[in-house]
Amino acid sequence: MKCRSLIIMLIATLTTGVCRAQNPQTAQTPQTAIAEDFKPSTFNQPGQEYPQVNSQRYVRFRIKAPQADSVRVSLGLGGRGGTILTKGPDGYFTGTTEGPMDEGFHYYHLTIDGGVFNDPGALNFYGSTRWESGIEIPAHDQDFYALKDVPHGNVQGILFPSKSTNTSRRAFVYTPPGYGKDRSKRYPVLYLQHGWGEDETAWSNQGHANLIMDNLIAEGKIKPFIIVMTYGMTNEIKMGPGALRNFKIEPFQTVLTDELIPYVDANFNTIADKAHRAMAGLSMGGMETHTITLGKPDVFDYYALLSGGVYQPDELKDKPKPRLIFLSCGSRERPDGVKNAAAALKQAGYNAVSYVSENTAHEFLTWRRSLHELAPLLFVN
Amino acid sequence: MKCRSLIIMLIATLTTGVCRAQNPQTAQTPQTAIAEDFKPSTFNQPGQEYPQVNSQRYVRFRIKAPQADSVRVSLGLGGRGGTILTKGPDGYFTGTTEGPMDEGFHYYHLTIDGGVFNDPGALNFYGSTRWESGIEIPAHDQDFYALKDVPHGNVQGILFPSKSTNTSRRAFVYTPPGYGKDRSKRYPVLYLQHGWGEDETAWSNQGHANLIMDNLIAEGKIKPFIIVMTYGMTNEIKMGPGALRNFKIEPFQTVLTDELIPYVDANFNTIADKAHRAMAGLSMGGMETHTITLGKPDVFDYYALLSGGVYQPDELKDKPKPRLIFLSCGSRERPDGVKNAAAALKQAGYNAVSYVSENTAHEFLTWRRSLHELAPLLFVN
Repeated sequence: MKCRSLIIMLIATLTTGVCRAQNPQTAQTPQTAIAEDFKPSTFNQPGQEYPQVNSQRYVRFRIKAPQADSVRVSLGLGGRGGTILTKGPDGYFTGTTEGPMDEGFHYYHLTIDGGVFNDPGALNFYGSTRWESGIEIPAHDQDFYALKDVPHGNVQGILFPSKSTNTSRRAFVYTPPGYGKDRSKRYPVLYLQHGWGEDETAWSNQGHANLIMDNLIAEGKIKPFIIVMTYGMTNEIKMGPGALRNFKIEPFQTVLTDELIPYVDANFNTIADKAHRAMAGLSMGGMETHTITLGKPDVFDYYALLSGGVYQPDELKDKPKPRLIFLSCGSRERPDGVKNAAAALKQAGYNAVSYVSENTAHEFLTWRRSLHELAPLLFVN
Repeated sequence: MKCRSLIIMLIATLTTGVCRAQNPQTAQTPQTAIAEDFKPSTFNQPGQEYPQVNSQRYVRFRIKAPQADSVRVSLGLGGRGGTILTKGPDGYFTGTTEGPMDEGFHYYHLTIDGGVFNDPGALNFYGSTRWESGIEIPAHDQDFYALKDVPHGNVQGILFPSKSTNTSRRAFVYTPPGYGKDRSKRYPVLYLQHGWGEDETAWSNQGHANLIMDNLIAEGKIKPFIIVMTYGMTNEIKMGPGALRNFKIEPFQTVLTDELIPYVDANFNTIADKAHRAMAGLSMGGMETHTITLGKPDVFDYYALLSGGVYQPDELKDKPKPRLIFLSCGSRERPDGVKNAAAALKQAGYNAVSYVSENTAHEFLTWRRSLHELAPLLFVN
């Protein structure tokens, strides 16, 4: 089976755990003194002072647990199992990562006396099949996903009927600024999938997909389109290690192509044809995109895999040619695989584009940047 | 000042803490054996087995913390500071509430070796100015807020410009099923406020306002309308005890009446006049509703206070008469206050309705039921 190696690669990537957030160049032995300019993370809960991030991208934690013996944070140096906090006489455990974190968003959790809990200071984000603490390390290019004083689109929570799973399922639909005002205006649609262990909230909460779109539209860099995000692990597999090996695409494909797309086309101002429909996904969502676009070549005309594998020319040759194939990943993943695959696709006559996010790994800054690169290429040819 | 006593009452109610979820009739000495038919709470995180609820409304908790000395849950008997869990040889702390909980939704948290954390098994809900664990005790009348196979409206996250606070602010907008399909159809709007320490997510997440509306509309019991929910603690007061005393209404009133309402009227298919605009709020949101409807009598024509105080005929006498005044609370709050106030208003010639939710306190089941009672009375006269 073609996708076996991709699955194994994804599992390997996904199970690296705490290492994912580490900067291997700088984390081993910090060369500089720690700058005491720590500020609360922008993803803290309202009014919470900790966790904090400094200008060198170090993170400082502070957790109240007066009678606890040990508090560890999963963020930091992988080899040591994260950052070990030290208890002070005030009953607070504090500590700072031994090295700088990569720019962007990272999931983490606390281990308190052997139990896994979230940091009460931080907001929670659905990842690893649970709501985990999240932290935001300011990125040098964060302007493209910043909340600005521009017209904003809406993110609509919808409940669509799903006969195949016998329930109402949730999706989020980004509609661009002004949607619905000009009643005759219709829009193309990007179906955008999350990764393993995440859900339909990920692209808005962790990914800022709506803000990325609002900003691109305000700058006139893209033709406005709708984005639809839904839960991709439809077959309710057990969420343990190895679960991905047993993943079956059919239940999700049915929900997506037979239930969600018709619902969206019936209830939103879409241009309901293949030429105005794209599918993209990150990590496991890329695996889904790969399988579904190949299995249903008449549904989508734009394909994008973000840290989610590649297409080989062989897989595509007897099928209608898509208008775009977009492949991306972080520079700390396998950039050569992505670049080489795009080159081979171009060689074979496809409109293929690769993008590598500098100094990021299998994480959301890679995917925010990928969406930012992808959006201007959609629905233009 | 008229609202001083209401504020003090609200503070008293809000600071009863863990007592709020307790059923005073039955919690003191359980008379029956505990039924071993515990099932995972419907508000658990995906795949999580605990916390569980049995048919008698007892709750059982299970928390992994192998090296911890003590784990306590804030839910249960107030006098004992909640439910104290016992550690087993497997490293899990377990325990069951000593009495049944009231039906409906309850916030709670864990105290682990002196630190406050959330239950990793439960979903989190914004209350008490933080994201807290939540549990759902099945109610005998839960059908009215159940997710059913009926047409569903959408809950749209919007970002609206706010000059007065110099940012883009978030609101959620419930649009009824079929909204936007019939381009000429316009809807009345209910502005619906959360309570102290909650935010604009509360009425959808804890309150199921969208499902209550979907079900009422499917049964033909109400005329469809839009609901708008935004954050009501605009003046960013410090969130500690006593904070409510320093609450100022003006910043929120400006956001609501000068910024949000014009934005909603410009961007949604509303009937943009007073006769088709209602304001309601729970607890502190009722206090806001009271103040703003009296201060801006030309904006809203329907007023509703849910566990949020009452109107006196004197306050209303020199103002245009609203089409409806709705007052409600739980039977474990001050039902006589609500009933007497409605009677006095009727006596003075107002269309006043009171509603008391049986066997509930200052909690969300009271407010779900109140919305269910209120909705059919809105925009009909």
